[in-house]
Amino acid sequence: MKSEKGFCDLGFAKVDTDRLRRRGFSEVIYCPGKTRSHLKKIVQTLIKNKQDILLTRLDKNTYTYLRRSFSVLQYNSLARLGYLCKKIQTRRQGLVAVVSAGTADVPVAEEAAVTLEVMGNRVTRLYDVGVAGVHRILQNLGVIRQAKVIVVVAGMEGALASLVSGMVSCPVIAVPTSFGYGASFGGLSALLTMLNSCSPGIAVVNIDNGFGAGYFASMINRS
Amino acid sequence: MKSEKGFCDLGFAKVDTDRLRRRGFSEVIYCPGKTRSHLKKIVQTLIKNKQDILLTRLDKNTYTYLRRSFSVLQYNSLARLGYLCKKIQTRRQGLVAVVSAGTADVPVAEEAAVTLEVMGNRVTRLYDVGVAGVHRILQNLGVIRQAKVIVVVAGMEGALASLVSGMVSCPVIAVPTSFGYGASFGGLSALLTMLNSCSPGIAVVNIDNGFGAGYFASMINRS
Amino acid sequence: MKSEKGFCDLGFAKVDTDRLRRRGFSEVIYCPGKTRSHLKKIVQTLIKNKQDILLTRLDKNTYTYLRRSFSVLQYNSLARLGYLCKKIQTRRQGLVAVVSAGTADVPVAEEAAVTLEVMGNRVTRLYDVGVAGVHRILQNLGVIRQAKVIVVVAGMEGALASLVSGMVSCPVIAVPTSFGYGASFGGLSALLTMLNSCSPGIAVVNIDNGFGAGYFASMINRS
Amino acid sequence: MKSEKGFCDLGFAKVDTDRLRRRGFSEVIYCPGKTRSHLKKIVQTLIKNKQDILLTRLDKNTYTYLRRSFSVLQYNSLARLGYLCKKIQTRRQGLVAVVSAGTADVPVAEEAAVTLEVMGNRVTRLYDVGVAGVHRILQNLGVIRQAKVIVVVAGMEGALASLVSGMVSCPVIAVPTSFGYGASFGGLSALLTMLNSCSPGIAVVNIDNGFGAGYFASMINRS
Amino acid sequence: MKSEKGFCDLGFAKVDTDRLRRRGFSEVIYCPGKTRSHLKKIVQTLIKNKQDILLTRLDKNTYTYLRRSFSVLQYNSLARLGYLCKKIQTRRQGLVAVVSAGTADVPVAEEAAVTLEVMGNRVTRLYDVGVAGVHRILQNLGVIRQAKVIVVVAGMEGALASLVSGMVSCPVIAVPTSFGYGASFGGLSALLTMLNSCSPGIAVVNIDNGFGAGYFASMINRS
Amino acid sequence: MKSEKGFCDLGFAKVDTDRLRRRGFSEVIYCPGKTRSHLKKIVQTLIKNKQDILLTRLDKNTYTYLRRSFSVLQYNSLARLGYLCKKIQTRRQGLVAVVSAGTADVPVAEEAAVTLEVMGNRVTRLYDVGVAGVHRILQNLGVIRQAKVIVVVAGMEGALASLVSGMVSCPVIAVPTSFGYGASFGGLSALLTMLNSCSPGIAVVNIDNGFGAGYFASMINRS
Amino acid sequence: MKSEKGFCDLGFAKVDTDRLRRRGFSEVIYCPGKTRSHLKKIVQTLIKNKQDILLTRLDKNTYTYLRRSFSVLQYNSLARLGYLCKKIQTRRQGLVAVVSAGTADVPVAEEAAVTLEVMGNRVTRLYDVGVAGVHRILQNLGVIRQAKVIVVVAGMEGALASLVSGMVSCPVIAVPTSFGYGASFGGLSALLTMLNSCSPGIAVVNIDNGFGAGYFASMINRS
Amino acid sequence: MKSEKGFCDLGFAKVDTDRLRRRGFSEVIYCPGKTRSHLKKIVQTLIKNKQDILLTRLDKNTYTYLRRSFSVLQYNSLARLGYLCKKIQTRRQGLVAVVSAGTADVPVAEEAAVTLEVMGNRVTRLYDVGVAGVHRILQNLGVIRQAKVIVVVAGMEGALASLVSGMVSCPVIAVPTSFGYGASFGGLSALLTMLNSCSPGIAVVNIDNGFGAGYFASMINRS
Repeated sequence: MKSEKGFCDLGFAKVDTDRLRRRGFSEVIYCPGKTRSHLKKIVQTLIKNKQDILLTRLDKNTYTYLRRSFSVLQYNSLARLGYLCKKIQTRRQGLVAVVSAGTADVPVAEEAAVTLEVMGNRVTRLYDVGVAGVHRILQNLGVIRQAKVIVVVAGMEGALASLVSGMVSCPVIAVPTSFGYGASFGGLSALLTMLNSCSPGIAVVNIDNGFGAGYFASMINRS
Repeated sequence: MKSEKGFCDLGFAKVDTDRLRRRGFSEVIYCPGKTRSHLKKIVQTLIKNKQDILLTRLDKNTYTYLRRSFSVLQYNSLARLGYLCKKIQTRRQGLVAVVSAGTADVPVAEEAAVTLEVMGNRVTRLYDVGVAGVHRILQNLGVIRQAKVIVVVAGMEGALASLVSGMVSCPVIAVPTSFGYGASFGGLSALLTMLNSCSPGIAVVNIDNGFGAGYFASMINRS
Repeated sequence: MKSEKGFCDLGFAKVDTDRLRRRGFSEVIYCPGKTRSHLKKIVQTLIKNKQDILLTRLDKNTYTYLRRSFSVLQYNSLARLGYLCKKIQTRRQGLVAVVSAGTADVPVAEEAAVTLEVMGNRVTRLYDVGVAGVHRILQNLGVIRQAKVIVVVAGMEGALASLVSGMVSCPVIAVPTSFGYGASFGGLSALLTMLNSCSPGIAVVNIDNGFGAGYFASMINRS
Repeated sequence: MKSEKGFCDLGFAKVDTDRLRRRGFSEVIYCPGKTRSHLKKIVQTLIKNKQDILLTRLDKNTYTYLRRSFSVLQYNSLARLGYLCKKIQTRRQGLVAVVSAGTADVPVAEEAAVTLEVMGNRVTRLYDVGVAGVHRILQNLGVIRQAKVIVVVAGMEGALASLVSGMVSCPVIAVPTSFGYGASFGGLSALLTMLNSCSPGIAVVNIDNGFGAGYFASMINRS
Repeated sequence: MKSEKGFCDLGFAKVDTDRLRRRGFSEVIYCPGKTRSHLKKIVQTLIKNKQDILLTRLDKNTYTYLRRSFSVLQYNSLARLGYLCKKIQTRRQGLVAVVSAGTADVPVAEEAAVTLEVMGNRVTRLYDVGVAGVHRILQNLGVIRQAKVIVVVAGMEGALASLVSGMVSCPVIAVPTSFGYGASFGGLSALLTMLNSCSPGIAVVNIDNGFGAGYFASMINRS
Repeated sequence: MKSEKGFCDLGFAKVDTDRLRRRGFSEVIYCPGKTRSHLKKIVQTLIKNKQDILLTRLDKNTYTYLRRSFSVLQYNSLARLGYLCKKIQTRRQGLVAVVSAGTADVPVAEEAAVTLEVMGNRVTRLYDVGVAGVHRILQNLGVIRQAKVIVVVAGMEGALASLVSGMVSCPVIAVPTSFGYGASFGGLSALLTMLNSCSPGIAVVNIDNGFGAGYFASMINRS
Repeated sequence: MKSEKGFCDLGFAKVDTDRLRRRGFSEVIYCPGKTRSHLKKIVQTLIKNKQDILLTRLDKNTYTYLRRSFSVLQYNSLARLGYLCKKIQTRRQGLVAVVSAGTADVPVAEEAAVTLEVMGNRVTRLYDVGVAGVHRILQNLGVIRQAKVIVVVAGMEGALASLVSGMVSCPVIAVPTSFGYGASFGGLSALLTMLNSCSPGIAVVNIDNGFGAGYFASMINRS
Repeated sequence: MKSEKGFCDLGFAKVDTDRLRRRGFSEVIYCPGKTRSHLKKIVQTLIKNKQDILLTRLDKNTYTYLRRSFSVLQYNSLARLGYLCKKIQTRRQGLVAVVSAGTADVPVAEEAAVTLEVMGNRVTRLYDVGVAGVHRILQNLGVIRQAKVIVVVAGMEGALASLVSGMVSCPVIAVPTSFGYGASFGGLSALLTMLNSCSPGIAVVNIDNGFGAGYFASMINRS
């Protein structure tokens, strides 16, 4: 079905086919809570309307199901992202650094990094550089100072965002993760830490929202 | 006192005189909880080390006290900002829009707007365009679509950030305000709304933190 | 067992057989936490006392079990509602619109819509019109302005209720859903958003309570 | 200033002069956080555009100030409402009952009741009928059963809404109040009680939001 | 092992064998988190020291395991209680009423009722008399007014405790249950309701703690 | 005004004149949020209907005002209670112990103790026996073991209730107080401690609710 | 009054005169909530029983009052501590470092530092070394590595404790402060950060509890 | 891979090989969220760099997998700890007591105790001595008074830490556990109790963080 009024009405969904024109990137599909057949119809609609495809929180089995119909659909299992972009090429000039505090934060960091790559950004990854061993980040200052924008992913106490921000002159996007135990309360601890950073130059996205951070960083990098 | 190691140790404070070089803007002083004489000494130290001055949450009386010593110190009473920047001139090319939902959000919006101006950005203000009368924002789409970055300030349910973000292709920085009553819980309601926005392209700063939003927007605009 | 004093005492339950007379609709049975045999006895009691039947949160298997005894019992699997109403016919004159923000909110929206239909209302559905693409709702203004009462179902930031309310002159019943992730805290985010709406003309029911919204809307439509 | 595009831009505010046409009642002004001169200009703008006036949370001194310019402006000190409606007359046929649990809930109940009267509804008040002495409400069943819609105002445990709803066949709008102490947590206890009512037919507005309840009830009564 | 110093040290546990003498009832064993062999050793120790046995939250399978060693151990599966009291006989004169709001609250109510019976009290049960149909409780006033102490078990909004307390002259022990959905937050809603009751004469135990309510009621009845 | 139907309707209040007959004690008046003239009328109504008087949270100035009209009204400034009971005499046989953890908890403890005395109970006070110096309570075991019921008042961590309960065979009523700082969160810490006591035989009233604890204890003592 | 049983019963308080012998330091008096005359009697009792004196949260005026009776009583106004220790001398060998993140945290840091000094410890202070300018702490590593135990005081995001702990081999006691705004929620943000530190070797005391941190650090230093 | 700059970069992790030198104990590996092959590579790296091994929250199956490669790796299934320390011998002179309130707290207590033993401390265990039967702890005072530092592990109301601290002169490290039900809220109740202890000399670690408590206690014992 082709859209004439800026969206396609599938009954269960109104696919926003005007998004690419209006916002610079097509509608991104959050997969949880959608049936496989619904996802298939949405992808079909996006393809027919010449939109790029980015599917978040896509599990492996559903990807396998979708690939039967869309053989070119690509998948990153760690980031849980499915995508199909006509021209993934490094369009942006700036470099984006994705920094994570611990190894358990890597899936969320990868969701940010792959989102950035799908949207055409150059990305450098710097993982497991939490504040418990601060020499690991200090020795990599050269890398992060080259970045035009930095995504910092951290659970537990989330202190890494403040530390990084204090050493650079570019914006830092902080992603709290739900990783931790006890009084981390599903990421609330890291979220509050990041919102209350004493270092200006930090903005925060939702808990575990690697996609949102990557998308936001790409917008900055494009500007 | 001049700094040799990147900060000046005043005993009660270690003024970061390396900040301008390292981060592109001098250390910003948050005034609450500091005595007048402490503030005076900090400002003296910054001036001697050729740093710009930006004092946040500065009340009128303390400003009057400080101006006796620093006659060139400027003040914006609505934004509660004191500042002294050697060359406030429009250095950045991009336009930043500061949008507020209601009139009660204006002080926080002004804190963002004046911070942006002090840091050398061109700013356009669009106040009282909350979603209760959506024609007000729809008729101003032209203005906000010219912006390179947008700051949205809203209390109560904070829905304006999602609405604006859905219509533009630039990053939106959302500032929840503590304005509201009953179950707004001091801004928590607006904070959660903004963190959970269904529209990608939004990052959030702390409740009432107009300064932080302006600072972050300026970083984007500079890039 | 027939009731003489307004309820039937089954020991484990006191079925309110006076409800239809007193409140205009029979006692509605919330199924979770009740055994199959208890549900069967409750339905028997309601039928003997000439009450209508509405079973909420009824899972498919329990429905299959109950249909063996009550072959005329109907079921809507998406809305998880079982029902048996002697005269489902469009008794009310007003139209009720059920509006949802995203496709993941559809089950709760359907619970509201089917409840409304079982209670004899004309219903129009408008799904997936969230604020991330506001043109979808703006192009459907004609539909929602015909409604005598509107139910708005939304998770994540829940901003849709304020937007809709600001464009119409009828009451809006807002249903927060638990759909979302990170700091949505099981629907708390959407609940607070809706309670703090800057647009008057909104009242809120419990998280995911599509039935409650439909029931309340039907009461208004009847009046 | 006259509006041509549906609102008047006063700089600090964009007064919605299309509200009466679009929603059936003019924009209502929430006074806290606005300066006296801003309020005066807003009222002037509303009058020039032939809108009705309703000012909520208006304190006595500000009213005195405003009355110097608008001698016909009326005031109810208990409800903290200022108003000026060209034709306050009983336009609606239905009766609205405003019921409060305790004497401390009366100011919020009055805010609801006066809002209803200003909007042209017939109102009956029934105060101090909380569940600690249930005979008080049982002996007044006749009164509340005549109502087309009921507003129930209660703090502390907020149980009154469920009790009333269970005895009537019309919609009940519940208003939690912040009255209480200890673990009432500023009205949170009553709010949760009302959202979790076991009796269908209840919808809830924000804590202490008597105005919102009155406005919503008036919308139902008009339908 | 026999105790000489008031407890038996099993290494993993120090069984309090002085409890019956000191407090009037033996140590009650909360089963979750204990292995089967540990439970067996604890029961052995209690028997050897001539203590009564009451095991709470005992699942059926563990009971079956224990009965192999202690053939006289009794079990109530609804209340999840195992017990072995040398002389269960009606020792107390007063009657205790256990009242529940809904059928889903029955397991917690039974935990209270069976605890009371095991501790030698006369118990009357009155289930499913929630405030949505208040005539059910009003017609049973005679029963509850005979009680010397009343246990009220309710989830959702928990309003039943206030209603009952307001009609009787004996103490009411309120048990919030975790039954409910949405903003009931695992029983928090009912807990706050009961703590904030406007009716004096109510005290509250932990969420779902039927045992604690029964134990406390038995203490009152004994006095 | 004399009551014929069990209450007197003063407009702003419906005084429950049936309370003494129905519940064994007259309606108790919670003073905050009531005007002086309203309080005066309520007291007059209670006197005319031969009810006892108990006014809680009564400040000194309001008492002075009331005594002009009711010269026999008595007052306890520490407990903030006004009262007028025709026959305060020791009617109950049992002894009630009121135990407090710290000196800052004394006002709440006194509210409980004086309520008990006004209601005709023998009371013994044991103050400042918190667990930081456990020998203070251990040396007073004789006193508390004579009690038929014990009220334990504690702020901060509220551990005293568990300790006392573990050493006695009578019911313990726990009153959390809002005394404390930092993460005591206005008494929430002590409230949770008391609800989660590992020692059975404890029930809890609202934060700072000394009156409620005294009233409940009196009910037990009467039984 | 002299104590024979380990405490002195003043009625309103039971002063623990056994504390010095049992715990190594006398009972410390928390002043808020105590009347002046009560404080005076407590101090008298402590002196008569040859205890040291430490009064926390003592305001200046109350100190002035007490000094009239106890002319040797000393006072530190920043730390709000009154004290009188017979032999303040540097009894402990180890050095304790008190580190604060910002200048607004200094009063709490001073409460810790002076407590340590009163209890006979050598103390070094390092203030305003928060992570926004990490070179300030890195250049002072030599100082903090000499310490046997470190107290870290920080508000806002509280990240400093993790950073310090990661660089040293001694225990770190973290004190969250209530300094901050917006979503710092009275110190909750810093408290959660510190509890969730990814760096082992940190334990936490209550919000703003500088005294508790100093006392705990002194216990470690003594060992 | 050998480290030259203080860490080994494995891509997914940067193993801190400088930790033993810098902090006195090697980097401890928290296992959840790490794949088996990642864990294997991390252990290899630590061994090659002559670090001790301590793996926390290691489940049995993963241990079995790792032992195939590292046959000397030891395991304690109750404490869920894997370890390999070249010279586990009693290096410290002081005794550490690990005290638990109930049998359900034992796994967390064992995590603390085994951590202490692996780090070379002498440990004495005292389990199931909660305040419900206070004679159990009073009769063991001799044991705990020999300790140089005490770890107290408690769930539910967590009162044991205050009680123990009040009787000893050494530091107490409190570990709240998530054991409990109803309003224990996953350990929040015990956490708040311990933070708010009225007895000075207590510091708190995260909920269920037995490892952190053991590590911290070992640091004190070493000093």
